[in-house]
Amino acid sequence: MVVRYYLNKKERMMTVTRIFDTPPCITSFAAVGGSSEGKGPLGNHFDYISDDEYFGRTTYEQAESELQRQTAAIALEKAGLKFSDIDVILGGDLLNQCVATSFGHRESGVSILGLYAACSTFTEGLILSGMLTSYGLAGKALGITSSHFYSAERQYRMPIEYGGQRAPTTQRTATAAGAVIVGQGECAPFIRGFTVGRIVDMGVTDAANMGAAMAPAAYDTITRFLNESGRSIADFDRIITGDLGMIGSSLLYKLFERDGVDIKDKHLDCGCLLYDPDTQDVHSGGSGCGCVASVSCAYLLPKIITGEYENILLAATGALMSPTMTQQGESIPSVSHAVWLSHSV
Amino acid sequence: MVVRYYLNKKERMMTVTRIFDTPPCITSFAAVGGSSEGKGPLGNHFDYISDDEYFGRTTYEQAESELQRQTAAIALEKAGLKFSDIDVILGGDLLNQCVATSFGHRESGVSILGLYAACSTFTEGLILSGMLTSYGLAGKALGITSSHFYSAERQYRMPIEYGGQRAPTTQRTATAAGAVIVGQGECAPFIRGFTVGRIVDMGVTDAANMGAAMAPAAYDTITRFLNESGRSIADFDRIITGDLGMIGSSLLYKLFERDGVDIKDKHLDCGCLLYDPDTQDVHSGGSGCGCVASVSCAYLLPKIITGEYENILLAATGALMSPTMTQQGESIPSVSHAVWLSHSV
Repeated sequence: MVVRYYLNKKERMMTVTRIFDTPPCITSFAAVGGSSEGKGPLGNHFDYISDDEYFGRTTYEQAESELQRQTAAIALEKAGLKFSDIDVILGGDLLNQCVATSFGHRESGVSILGLYAACSTFTEGLILSGMLTSYGLAGKALGITSSHFYSAERQYRMPIEYGGQRAPTTQRTATAAGAVIVGQGECAPFIRGFTVGRIVDMGVTDAANMGAAMAPAAYDTITRFLNESGRSIADFDRIITGDLGMIGSSLLYKLFERDGVDIKDKHLDCGCLLYDPDTQDVHSGGSGCGCVASVSCAYLLPKIITGEYENILLAATGALMSPTMTQQGESIPSVSHAVWLSHSV
Repeated sequence: MVVRYYLNKKERMMTVTRIFDTPPCITSFAAVGGSSEGKGPLGNHFDYISDDEYFGRTTYEQAESELQRQTAAIALEKAGLKFSDIDVILGGDLLNQCVATSFGHRESGVSILGLYAACSTFTEGLILSGMLTSYGLAGKALGITSSHFYSAERQYRMPIEYGGQRAPTTQRTATAAGAVIVGQGECAPFIRGFTVGRIVDMGVTDAANMGAAMAPAAYDTITRFLNESGRSIADFDRIITGDLGMIGSSLLYKLFERDGVDIKDKHLDCGCLLYDPDTQDVHSGGSGCGCVASVSCAYLLPKIITGEYENILLAATGALMSPTMTQQGESIPSVSHAVWLSHSV
């Protein structure tokens, strides 16, 4: 396997892995999805499913802004909070210039830090929200990410009306958003620690196979979190990746097999959970900033609250390419940011 | 004046303003520019001026990645550091999906947090670098942003070859980058405090007049920093905005005049400093993530080190629009993140 842009192994290269002395917690969260997400296996777990892909607006980009606004509003409402109770929003999305985030929250009046890590933006937001609140720099932080199938298709590939055929390795960008409110507190889910990923690029140039491009980044970050935090896979009920999809997940297993580690029984992938492969034509699975965010908020966080999961490691993955760079023949730099979430401390 | 998306004044709306107990400092910095920036009044202050707009690469997007890589390398070299000494990179740029940042640092092997706040990304990076290092979450953080005239023109407007005429209110996107290395230490410049801005949108829809769109955000953030930190304009040698340009700066003065405050004598704007309006055809001034970053690193930070400036407030400004939203008739949400930098503590 050729490692094109990876590591100078002669040099010490620790990633930023930290365990919180005072773990912050997720005090509220919400997931909103579109109609396809509502028809999937997690449909009943969402806080709200919109059958209107426009979310009451007139363009898909406005729709994604509205999706973010509604998701934030539901997370606030569930906690009995208003925007004025939030110190800072940490948000991002896949649209050029992250406009779903900036237009979605322009009425909020809240300080905002814009993030971009492609589909790993959700865990970047969790990491920074955790840091800011754990150290008292913010009382309450709202982390939010979204994606929208129709706004993403026409920006990254072709307008839906074109009817382009999709390769079997592709994943469907979720029309979904997830929001978390993070603060100091004593209720699950706790944010216990994290690894800030670095860029891994194994030379994959096929933008229709982003699972393959991202799997090495997930492997790198999960391995580093475990090594640098002194923990093992046995310490976690589940190791959950963002949206590697079916192909990327199988590649992740192969990377771990080289180390003699079998993670199949412990592994879940949000891209494989969101849709039903038998009845929904999503090829390799779901993807998008909203995939890992909504699956986390609809499905994973409730299981941590009940204690069904005592500890999970959530490693969202992002393909940091653009259509322009793909057209120039460039390979796909990827990143994965991982967060350890737990039921108790 | 109609405030479209601004504030519900009935609610408490404090932005995140903080003063560091243990101020981190900027231990090294570097500025790199293109040929136009080299011909401007600050040309001699840059660490490196490239007369090759491609920076040795074959496309403008690759050129901007290379610009980031070189700027980071110079900042490291000036401090006698290697990438392996850096814990985390905090970077961003204006290209779709922030590819100048991700491609620029994919060989570094360093943990990376991608940021997006348009032209205010540089101060967002300073704020987060300061937070992470002040609280010991990272030893050394590298903050970097860039922009490139040719990659920006063809993405946001038209390819240069088209020869489109530019409106008198437009600003020239700088081909430039600035990098800072932030850590704990006892040498100037110190990062003393900051305000994380919120989105302000006064209804300006003219994407050829971004200074007008951003001026209210600068006013909002500067005013809030002063009010919330209990400081006044008299406490600062200079109040410096990112890239309001000549038109945006004059609007900023008008906004302060409503409060009976004259900031003209204290104010500088990086967009007005970078080019010579008499000999360079830049209309309202410079702009871009690289404008405030390079002017800071080439011109402002050295003046803080010598003590010529004891205290400055640097409020970078960002227009959070995209060409898609402009085509849909949307107004321009803006944000400004401010950082207080000082010679001594």
